[in-house]
Amino acid sequence: MKPTLPQGTRDFAPDVVYKRHYILKIIQSVFELYGYQPIETPAFENLQTLTGKYGEEGDRLIFKILNNGLNEPKKEEKIRAAFEQAIKGKSDPDLTERALRYDLTIPFARFVVMNQNDLAFPFRRYQMQPVWRADRPQKGRYREFWQCDADVVGSNSLINEAELMAIYRESFHLLNIPEIILRVNNRKILSGLAECCGAVELLTDITVAIDKIDKIQLDGVIKELGARGLADNQIEMISNYLNIQGNTKEKIEKMKSFLSESETAQQGLEELEETLKYHEHLSNQEWESEVEVDFTLARGLNYYTGFIAEVVTKAVNMGSIGGGGRYDDLTGLFGLKNLSGVGISFGIDRIYDVLSELDIFPDTMQSNTKLIFLNLIPESLKDIFGYLKLLRENGIAVEYYMDKGKIDKQLKYANKRNIPFVAFIGEEELKNKTIKLKDMESGEQEILNIMALKDLLIKM
Amino acid sequence: MKPTLPQGTRDFAPDVVYKRHYILKIIQSVFELYGYQPIETPAFENLQTLTGKYGEEGDRLIFKILNNGLNEPKKEEKIRAAFEQAIKGKSDPDLTERALRYDLTIPFARFVVMNQNDLAFPFRRYQMQPVWRADRPQKGRYREFWQCDADVVGSNSLINEAELMAIYRESFHLLNIPEIILRVNNRKILSGLAECCGAVELLTDITVAIDKIDKIQLDGVIKELGARGLADNQIEMISNYLNIQGNTKEKIEKMKSFLSESETAQQGLEELEETLKYHEHLSNQEWESEVEVDFTLARGLNYYTGFIAEVVTKAVNMGSIGGGGRYDDLTGLFGLKNLSGVGISFGIDRIYDVLSELDIFPDTMQSNTKLIFLNLIPESLKDIFGYLKLLRENGIAVEYYMDKGKIDKQLKYANKRNIPFVAFIGEEELKNKTIKLKDMESGEQEILNIMALKDLLIKM
Repeated sequence: MKPTLPQGTRDFAPDVVYKRHYILKIIQSVFELYGYQPIETPAFENLQTLTGKYGEEGDRLIFKILNNGLNEPKKEEKIRAAFEQAIKGKSDPDLTERALRYDLTIPFARFVVMNQNDLAFPFRRYQMQPVWRADRPQKGRYREFWQCDADVVGSNSLINEAELMAIYRESFHLLNIPEIILRVNNRKILSGLAECCGAVELLTDITVAIDKIDKIQLDGVIKELGARGLADNQIEMISNYLNIQGNTKEKIEKMKSFLSESETAQQGLEELEETLKYHEHLSNQEWESEVEVDFTLARGLNYYTGFIAEVVTKAVNMGSIGGGGRYDDLTGLFGLKNLSGVGISFGIDRIYDVLSELDIFPDTMQSNTKLIFLNLIPESLKDIFGYLKLLRENGIAVEYYMDKGKIDKQLKYANKRNIPFVAFIGEEELKNKTIKLKDMESGEQEILNIMALKDLLIKM
Repeated sequence: MKPTLPQGTRDFAPDVVYKRHYILKIIQSVFELYGYQPIETPAFENLQTLTGKYGEEGDRLIFKILNNGLNEPKKEEKIRAAFEQAIKGKSDPDLTERALRYDLTIPFARFVVMNQNDLAFPFRRYQMQPVWRADRPQKGRYREFWQCDADVVGSNSLINEAELMAIYRESFHLLNIPEIILRVNNRKILSGLAECCGAVELLTDITVAIDKIDKIQLDGVIKELGARGLADNQIEMISNYLNIQGNTKEKIEKMKSFLSESETAQQGLEELEETLKYHEHLSNQEWESEVEVDFTLARGLNYYTGFIAEVVTKAVNMGSIGGGGRYDDLTGLFGLKNLSGVGISFGIDRIYDVLSELDIFPDTMQSNTKLIFLNLIPESLKDIFGYLKLLRENGIAVEYYMDKGKIDKQLKYANKRNIPFVAFIGEEELKNKTIKLKDMESGEQEILNIMALKDLLIKM
């Protein structure tokens, strides 16, 4: 039997794990700097916790777990009935009670509701875990992928938005990704636009159409708005909205007068101004990224009600590498009302692809092992054990090539593992209690004793 | 709807995540010190990769994922047939193609076979990921739990065994767990016992019975051996085997003569001696743990063929907190023959329980946030933003209490979060550009400026 991987899943070999952890650790350190704390939730939830939360399409893409013990005769009738539901596309707890985590937001809401009496509010949490979706796999889209989210619930202050913007910019600064643009908008402005068009009931249609502007341009959005039932004069107004240009200050001023009829829009614009002002105070000159007010930003079908944000880099042709926003009533789904939240998410797989494409992963992540002792003569074994012990006591990762093998084979191993130094102990070195060291990159060799070797490796 | 968690699963709140990561990071650092490298495999595998690998009981406990798209009319006939299999307790790919990871060893074997041309052998890998089993939940037994394994494949050297013993002892030393005993044995000695009894075909029965000695004592083992069909003279021999006493050297000598008729046993005893000798050279005086040759150690139904090991602490009444051994032909399951492997596993959940029970988690892990600025007067906001920025630039995690609220409420938040310092900026401090600092543990207060505050927090 030739083993394979399920479609849309990946193994991560050591070099990839090191690179992924490099990304995760940087983001984690920034989350912590701003007072966010980690939680972890189980890979599977009760199916009813998840169904109905991600729209019809989402429900279809949830991986459901088959109940165990289907062969219990006592339950047969119920299980058969549940199966008849399943082949009609409906889930039934007698066949499947559990389902794999589809995102980190719903489990977070569930966590907050279940732990509301123990948590200190405002509760800032981050979470970095895989999620699973039965989507058709394609380039850059997997059935198992990691999400990396930071959210705060229980605070209405717009300083949260400003700090989350800072978290984005600081993280991408530390990851050295160039030409980062952080686009921000406020859903209330889009609501105001719908009001001013007299199309409040079509807000979702407007949002979904505008959300596609990056892919289908203004012409495409106009066509889609028509298809979604908006009248010509409404479409013209939306088109004018999308065409507002200028620097941040100008755009906001123009929009204030363009949507002067809508109180909601004015509130959204004021919130945006206040958020930007807070962010200005919190942000750092070193962060080279740009903040851009983008009234065409809509963030699709999400449950956002205020601030929305999205991150792209102009250096690579790829979709957004992060996004988020404020939602007024997330935990209401589970019975805890009036708790506002705001959060952001990092697209780890895409960030990985960006760093790969730009070739900006640090070199140092190839291997942790600094040196390997080759296996040349058996009499050296005792000395080598002593050296391994001493180097490891000093925190230096070292290996010994334990099995017999030609020197070529041993060197090939060291090369393949990207181990920077190789140590030879032959008759001569054994007699003199020295070590012949080879720098695998430069090819240079030197003879030294163990203390000199230790000092050399500690400095690396 | 009141949300709940699926039976046998757990949320990890921040304090628990910090503690779990503390354990994982220590073990990871030791793995790296010995040249082991991380890999990660998907949460689900093709069902056929897993079935038949864990025994009948194991197959029953695998969580299977329901295929998506069960409502496609074209497939209905096949799906119905698959369902009829399922209610007979058999899996069929037309209903379920995928299943959740049950352990880390089989996915590792699959990984090695699939990547054999890219890997440098001997390949040392570690893996720290959750696994899922549909076991009946009970105290200390979960349906989702983490495994933490290190294995090497492609090397026959017993120095691997010695290094894995060192990894155990160094890890538990760094975790400060007292009274650790590392029990070691060799499966070949048990095979030799079966040979000498004339019960080679009952080796599994002998192994399974002996494995229970900690729970059911010698009397219980004797009873079980009888029930499993061993004759009185065979049972007497096994009983004598189990009664061999003395220090390490004495025990090995006695066993050599007790099983002198079996070449296999002699080989196992020599391997054990050699492993212990290597370990002696690699081990460190600081590690207070004991190594104990334990001929009653059997390690149950596992696929081990040579060295076996198990770790317990006498300080807490709990089962083993680690175990492992050598297996001759793990990747043979997937068509790659003659690759020997040896590995160990850490029981993370039990180690967590041991540290909790002994109350030996470091205090410093309560919260990353060092200080919170209270929200007293709005005029101070701009100064506070500057302070937040400066402290974060110096790597100090700080927060601001953003929402308005009574001081009591704000202090309660700081307390609940275990934030060690609280900063007050009232009229007086604002005027003087100072900060009133309160140490939440001692209750002491002092007035200082931002640079002095920074210096104080950096030192912590």
